[in-house]
Amino acid sequence: MSLSEERRIGRHAVLLVLNSEEDMLHKLNWKSAIGKVGSMESNKVVAAIETAAKRNKIINSDVYREAHALYHAIMEALHGVTRGQVQLGSVQRTVGLKFAILRGNPYENEVEGEWIAVALYGTIGAPVRGSEHEAIGLGINHI
Amino acid sequence: MSLSEERRIGRHAVLLVLNSEEDMLHKLNWKSAIGKVGSMESNKVVAAIETAAKRNKIINSDVYREAHALYHAIMEALHGVTRGQVQLGSVQRTVGLKFAILRGNPYENEVEGEWIAVALYGTIGAPVRGSEHEAIGLGINHI
Amino acid sequence: MSLSEERRIGRHAVLLVLNSEEDMLHKLNWKSAIGKVGSMESNKVVAAIETAAKRNKIINSDVYREAHALYHAIMEALHGVTRGQVQLGSVQRTVGLKFAILRGNPYENEVEGEWIAVALYGTIGAPVRGSEHEAIGLGINHI
Amino acid sequence: MSLSEERRIGRHAVLLVLNSEEDMLHKLNWKSAIGKVGSMESNKVVAAIETAAKRNKIINSDVYREAHALYHAIMEALHGVTRGQVQLGSVQRTVGLKFAILRGNPYENEVEGEWIAVALYGTIGAPVRGSEHEAIGLGINHI
Amino acid sequence: MSLSEERRIGRHAVLLVLNSEEDMLHKLNWKSAIGKVGSMESNKVVAAIETAAKRNKIINSDVYREAHALYHAIMEALHGVTRGQVQLGSVQRTVGLKFAILRGNPYENEVEGEWIAVALYGTIGAPVRGSEHEAIGLGINHI
Amino acid sequence: MSLSEERRIGRHAVLLVLNSEEDMLHKLNWKSAIGKVGSMESNKVVAAIETAAKRNKIINSDVYREAHALYHAIMEALHGVTRGQVQLGSVQRTVGLKFAILRGNPYENEVEGEWIAVALYGTIGAPVRGSEHEAIGLGINHI
Repeated sequence: MSLSEERRIGRHAVLLVLNSEEDMLHKLNWKSAIGKVGSMESNKVVAAIETAAKRNKIINSDVYREAHALYHAIMEALHGVTRGQVQLGSVQRTVGLKFAILRGNPYENEVEGEWIAVALYGTIGAPVRGSEHEAIGLGINHI
Repeated sequence: MSLSEERRIGRHAVLLVLNSEEDMLHKLNWKSAIGKVGSMESNKVVAAIETAAKRNKIINSDVYREAHALYHAIMEALHGVTRGQVQLGSVQRTVGLKFAILRGNPYENEVEGEWIAVALYGTIGAPVRGSEHEAIGLGINHI
Repeated sequence: MSLSEERRIGRHAVLLVLNSEEDMLHKLNWKSAIGKVGSMESNKVVAAIETAAKRNKIINSDVYREAHALYHAIMEALHGVTRGQVQLGSVQRTVGLKFAILRGNPYENEVEGEWIAVALYGTIGAPVRGSEHEAIGLGINHI
Repeated sequence: MSLSEERRIGRHAVLLVLNSEEDMLHKLNWKSAIGKVGSMESNKVVAAIETAAKRNKIINSDVYREAHALYHAIMEALHGVTRGQVQLGSVQRTVGLKFAILRGNPYENEVEGEWIAVALYGTIGAPVRGSEHEAIGLGINHI
Repeated sequence: MSLSEERRIGRHAVLLVLNSEEDMLHKLNWKSAIGKVGSMESNKVVAAIETAAKRNKIINSDVYREAHALYHAIMEALHGVTRGQVQLGSVQRTVGLKFAILRGNPYENEVEGEWIAVALYGTIGAPVRGSEHEAIGLGINHI
Repeated sequence: MSLSEERRIGRHAVLLVLNSEEDMLHKLNWKSAIGKVGSMESNKVVAAIETAAKRNKIINSDVYREAHALYHAIMEALHGVTRGQVQLGSVQRTVGLKFAILRGNPYENEVEGEWIAVALYGTIGAPVRGSEHEAIGLGINHI
């Protein structure tokens, strides 16, 4: 039931979003997508990730259970970025984020099946150039 | 006022906690510490990081403003790990975390001074071996 | 993809936990109102319930303490529906809700006086038909 | 000061909003369990529901993805009961709850598969007999 | 490292925003109580205020609706002190608070009746002498 | 239905807990600013305070670390005013607030340096004249 050392989906998602050289991701044969979104509207961040996941066939857009799994992974990742209330413009701040989405089987035991990870990395701050610091978030869900 | 590309303190802290090979951290001459903590008590996680920061002289334990800066960075990192309520055992879950603490000057402009980053990476889940998935958190504060 | 009328799992679960018998509500002589609201804007949900309560004379709209009691009952019911942050469209989701408002004396002891209950039941999900599941909420306050 | 059996205002409100008919649950052939838990410790509430789900074979206790689905359904249901912070004794209150767990296929489309619902109903209040009112919660997740 | 008596920045800020004149409280003939509580356990803070309110006959301890009104006022005041999660020791911090409880009729219109206010003022910080700053909270409810 | 000038219960409670004497603020030689803001949009409250702080040279608008310190002090003060979710119009309520910003050295020990405090006091309620009660908030940060 334990996590596979070389298939830690969250670690891979974070390294992917950080654009860190290290990828052993190729040999895993997992579905992945990366993208960018900058906005003061938190719903636009959610929508951008959902759209990328659907376009890249990471989730099947005709199946709600897959959209549901993704949605909660996104919301959890946003908690890491927003650290308290999942709000951007309504508390006078904005984000510039890269995101990575991964779908794969991170557990040793086959029966654990597929999981989805959403990693976010970028900056959060005032709507003034340079008035920002980094933020990260990771959401993981079974799919 | 903008962030220095090669001095992104959050990215460095996250890579450090992920134990990702890539370190250009050496040449930056920043203070850093890494450690591990596993607990069902959230206060023990906070205390372990505070203790490591003091022992490694990342903060001066006689100056409250430094402890205050660190405390908020820790709490923000915990939001990423806990994603909703900053609680562990009281909602029947436990964590096994590595942490990295960095203190340095991430902005191009000298006047921005020093900042502190706390990165957390590990697993969160039920108090049952293997019933866990990964989690990450990053908190950044001026010091 | 839409919910099966006779297999609404949340509704069944609630009826199961309530051990549902048919309503003895008639003989209680309490004030009540029911209504519907569908929106991506949480404030519209609040306003719809407030308006129904005033129109049906469940609260006296000239008395702030009654509006105050109702408002907090609504907010508490919304916690059950939103489960984390009281946000809808700003986190890219929408609700279709039925609501019931009751004002009456639920305690044996006369001195406990009147209380107000707001119950919400319906669906929450993506702004896509059928991409939704059930949700419930209940808020209770003295009035 | 204790609640009047036939005047439980929250229960009536929920039945009203549900427009309660008697259960057609029997013919659905879903897995279900009911139970009771009273505690000032929120982790005991979580554990009681998890234990009931495992004992009644609603989830397979050897498969983490099932425990993960259940855990999040429980936490979401607790949001409805606690309405703000998922804390009991630490904010000087206690609960007496019935719970129901259902596992089944609520969607018309076969591909949506199985979902799990956790419903909670009971009282929350001061650790003083009768100083309590009703509360409800519902959490739903794909499994 | 301890706070300077005449330079308590939060207190000055509050007095400044209140445009403080001396109390005309005497002539109002309202019920009031003040007290102190220091603890790492949030439930002890709640209990201390509840006990003071009952002992000073600000609320009637035989009437739940009065205890219910007070409880929510306390919880709201604690939000101002804790600013994010209503937790103390579980996030490794402690408080030293004075509290005031007032019961009276603050509105021009007689029909608005009685309200209760709970005010908290003191320090919050690490469990280390002097490693703390001021905090304030105010909760108001109809009773 | 509007608040009675001399019976503002929250203000009295706060003055009571503060044991108010008149300000010795003059001799401290601290930077300060006061202002007013009324809005249903929480971001407008944040922006009004930020603008006042910059115009009155309480913070240096070219230095992000100062804006960062101020921002978190504002957010913490807003927690006291909003008591649960930092939302106004989106949960159908509005505020009318006075604010005070102070920058000074509150600790005996010189090494603790400068801190910033943001205090908010006013009313919160329905967007209907008089349907409101008082609220207060205080945020403090090192700068």
